[in-house]
Amino acid sequence: MVGIAKLFIEIDGLTTMKMKPKSLGRINTKVLTPEEIEDIKYMRAAYAQAKKAYMLGEVPIGCVIVYEGKIIGRGYNRRNTDKTALAHAEITAIKRATRVIKDWRLEECKLYVTLEPCQMCAGAIVQARIPEVIMAAENPKAGCAGSVMDILNNPEFNHQVQVKKGVLKEECSALLKDFFVELRARNKAEKEQKGTL
Amino acid sequence: MVGIAKLFIEIDGLTTMKMKPKSLGRINTKVLTPEEIEDIKYMRAAYAQAKKAYMLGEVPIGCVIVYEGKIIGRGYNRRNTDKTALAHAEITAIKRATRVIKDWRLEECKLYVTLEPCQMCAGAIVQARIPEVIMAAENPKAGCAGSVMDILNNPEFNHQVQVKKGVLKEECSALLKDFFVELRARNKAEKEQKGTL
Repeated sequence: MVGIAKLFIEIDGLTTMKMKPKSLGRINTKVLTPEEIEDIKYMRAAYAQAKKAYMLGEVPIGCVIVYEGKIIGRGYNRRNTDKTALAHAEITAIKRATRVIKDWRLEECKLYVTLEPCQMCAGAIVQARIPEVIMAAENPKAGCAGSVMDILNNPEFNHQVQVKKGVLKEECSALLKDFFVELRARNKAEKEQKGTL
Repeated sequence: MVGIAKLFIEIDGLTTMKMKPKSLGRINTKVLTPEEIEDIKYMRAAYAQAKKAYMLGEVPIGCVIVYEGKIIGRGYNRRNTDKTALAHAEITAIKRATRVIKDWRLEECKLYVTLEPCQMCAGAIVQARIPEVIMAAENPKAGCAGSVMDILNNPEFNHQVQVKKGVLKEECSALLKDFFVELRARNKAEKEQKGTL
């Protein structure tokens, strides 16, 4: 987690964004559209959920669902903690959002998630008829919004999803990267300790 | 539901099956393997779950999960009743089975379901690492065990599922067919009643 705070974007008023990517070390200023500002705002909320997973030692993935400008469902990965494969960020957020909407159809909602959904979560998004998904990082090994499969946009299904990729990609990817670096270090240390016993 | 009872198979001792398919109107006798007998037994349990959905006016789909010869998770479709797209038969059965196994991995379980899983449920089966799925009817319009997509057997995922199709296919299909015939009749009657008001 060290250094993540430095990577965070700052919204200057409501029209510009200043960010300092790790790799460049300089300030970039770009004029943002109201939609981009909104996307960043909600992806930050999804990132905050991902941090909760991180703090539990879970793969840091977070999700929020937005309806009429309000977050109505939040979720983060708790697979090991809750001991169920169903405890993915998106599934929890969908469960909570449906309680608010009181309908299985989330037809006027947007879903923000820090990592490209897996096959189960992409399927749940289609089943819940969510029209739009905004995601941060792609998942080349298991993502189902185009990486391995495209479950969100199969013309044979009765619902297709509009997808936007790359919002807060650097921050969300960095959190995942930090997690796996620490996990590998922890596993290595455990192995070495066992070897000396 | 009229006539469904007549379609049900009868296990004669533990070695033969007698069934009377609607279309043929005659008795067929076939020697069954112990595995086939077991599959029929558990699919009947899944069918019993599907009937619960039917009684609620839900699309009749049922599921059971078996571990060491014992049913440890049951589920049936309650999407409209519970007002959530997550209330599919397989998801409920997985949720219950993981509570028994106390692990997100259901690596030594078999899942029996009366209809080919949708994209969400097929995804959940892969996520829960279930090694074997036995299904009754196929779903050419939305099934994700080969009909529209093959989520259960994508070599790029880290888990593949062994699939058996057609167990108690006639009975499970008949239940679905009856449901949709009745649903259309109900919708038609409602429409006509509105027209006369």
